[in-house]
Amino acid sequence: MTSLSYESSGVDYDQLDAFKRACQRAARTTAPLLAAHGYAEPAATRGESCYLIEAADHYLAHVEEGLGTKNLVADAVYAQQGLNFYREIAIDTVATIVNDLVTCGALPVSVAMHAAVGDSQWFADAARMQALVEGWAEGCRQAGAVWGGGETPTLKGIVAPEAIVLAGSAIGRIAPKSLRITGDVREGDAILFLASSGVQTNGLSLCRLIAERLPQGYATPLGHGAAGTYGEALLAPSVIYVNFVAECQRRGLKLGYVSHVTGHGWRKLMRLEEPFVYEITELRTSPPVFRFLQEMGPISQREMYATYNMGVGFAAYVAPELAEATLAAARDSGYDAWLAGTVKKEGSRKAVTVPPLNLSFEADTLQVR
Amino acid sequence: MTSLSYESSGVDYDQLDAFKRACQRAARTTAPLLAAHGYAEPAATRGESCYLIEAADHYLAHVEEGLGTKNLVADAVYAQQGLNFYREIAIDTVATIVNDLVTCGALPVSVAMHAAVGDSQWFADAARMQALVEGWAEGCRQAGAVWGGGETPTLKGIVAPEAIVLAGSAIGRIAPKSLRITGDVREGDAILFLASSGVQTNGLSLCRLIAERLPQGYATPLGHGAAGTYGEALLAPSVIYVNFVAECQRRGLKLGYVSHVTGHGWRKLMRLEEPFVYEITELRTSPPVFRFLQEMGPISQREMYATYNMGVGFAAYVAPELAEATLAAARDSGYDAWLAGTVKKEGSRKAVTVPPLNLSFEADTLQVR
Repeated sequence: MTSLSYESSGVDYDQLDAFKRACQRAARTTAPLLAAHGYAEPAATRGESCYLIEAADHYLAHVEEGLGTKNLVADAVYAQQGLNFYREIAIDTVATIVNDLVTCGALPVSVAMHAAVGDSQWFADAARMQALVEGWAEGCRQAGAVWGGGETPTLKGIVAPEAIVLAGSAIGRIAPKSLRITGDVREGDAILFLASSGVQTNGLSLCRLIAERLPQGYATPLGHGAAGTYGEALLAPSVIYVNFVAECQRRGLKLGYVSHVTGHGWRKLMRLEEPFVYEITELRTSPPVFRFLQEMGPISQREMYATYNMGVGFAAYVAPELAEATLAAARDSGYDAWLAGTVKKEGSRKAVTVPPLNLSFEADTLQVR
Repeated sequence: MTSLSYESSGVDYDQLDAFKRACQRAARTTAPLLAAHGYAEPAATRGESCYLIEAADHYLAHVEEGLGTKNLVADAVYAQQGLNFYREIAIDTVATIVNDLVTCGALPVSVAMHAAVGDSQWFADAARMQALVEGWAEGCRQAGAVWGGGETPTLKGIVAPEAIVLAGSAIGRIAPKSLRITGDVREGDAILFLASSGVQTNGLSLCRLIAERLPQGYATPLGHGAAGTYGEALLAPSVIYVNFVAECQRRGLKLGYVSHVTGHGWRKLMRLEEPFVYEITELRTSPPVFRFLQEMGPISQREMYATYNMGVGFAAYVAPELAEATLAAARDSGYDAWLAGTVKKEGSRKAVTVPPLNLSFEADTLQVR
């Protein structure tokens, strides 16, 4: 069997990226419209995970995000095993929105739901519908944001009859403005990792492809020392990292930069424009779900780290003298965190290196920001 | 042939409404989370077209909205006649978002795109992709809002391979707070109508059903004194009503209430909780596309007014002494507008009445807000 890669699961990033670039070009032309509202577009907000709007004494933040295809896993596990994971799927959706928002230092104020179905019968299953509703509210609570409405259309002929598109948006705020996370990273900064709960919300197309090839599908025991099935492991709800950023703000701990580790796996660690080498030296054994994926694909170790979060959902770069205090802030606010490496300077080289695994990703492996 | 109704086009509002109500109940429990951000939830914002967040000296507004199924019409017209209406479709999507936002008096500051495809090949058609991008930017310009990012996922297995889900969100602002449109309506208030460009973004499922039954489909000449085809008439881009509200604010003209006339047609005129009778006496001949629909369905006149905007995209209720000035504000800012009727008080009766057509809709015909 040949080794799997993310591209083999059918997502063509090239077409998508051409569209994204066209959007970014056109979107930039609208920036002058902010002036009439008393706002301005801050430098370097385009291409970040969250769009910022600058006022005299605060920033507003705007994010629109979607869950991707993870709910297809919940659909299959529900059909095959009768296990209802729609509460978890809703938390995932809120997580993907607010985790992008906090990367700029904005705390989510309001989160709105977008749930589009192909057939209004989707909501006839009261247990599933109620789980989705409760999960969305729970995600908002974990994010400290109000659930500010939403949209729930029936899109017959656009959305598959059994399916649902889960997405949404958030408004966030940074006040005072000094709390903005700007990418103020220097040689010698510490790299802090916050654990993920599993694959969270990325790389699911590949996970589904693997499930299709397994005789027991999602009901395959996970093994690797873990109880439960592959499906259950995939559906562990994402961690919401808002409270980590909020706690650092309360304690006056400056976060130089943070990265929400999603699509593109550890390559996302080099999102910053400025060239640095991010050297990861403190590795944990990767969680069972990733060892399962790597073995079942099979997927090369390089491809695993290029695609999945590998147990790391969020990374923060801080001045070395703040490293221990930031670690304490993370742990005190309930996160599993550790100091994982160091930011290095090697001229114009931009890369993520993992010496214990003899792995490195150079700048050209991350085209999208 | 039996007469068509909106329900016959396959949208079951009952299931959907049960979900919406569950969402609203759960969402309300999250309101206390605003306090930590220095905000509060104003009374009576739940169930309005736009969610408001109250600060000391301003409101923020949050809307998540979608286009519905109108892009299926653009898809069919593109396939059948090679006519590219994706610019118009993008304007429609922005319109549906920002027109909801202005109903509370908020001016849109930032609009984000959500464009989910079933296959990234959707974007391989450069002309279509570019039209969509340009339309979105044009919609933002008409709304006076910045295009603040967005999300463009490929949702294989969720979204149909040829299709796209178009939706998005907006952040708006009301400052000073006195500009909020609160539903301050009194007996004797004037009802001002602003023209629509056609069906705009609602009732499209029924329009598609009718197209399927026509030998020439969307290429059927519209007739009724109009040039062009049925498809072209359906795809006229929606009017964006932001500048009307903005102009009234600039001129100090208080809008007691406004209604974005979308799903549920003229029944939407009685969105306010307080019971009034909205008497519409000044009717225009309905635009050709509606006469075409009524004839081709056939659809009863009552059903037409219960489903479609019938040439009226936006309604404003103002004190009688402001009626002429508000009309002038609408016309000066480029809208086709007229004084259409009067708000009456008849005890606890809530209804929309159209005496020239001998039509009336009582409160029980509008369950959703």
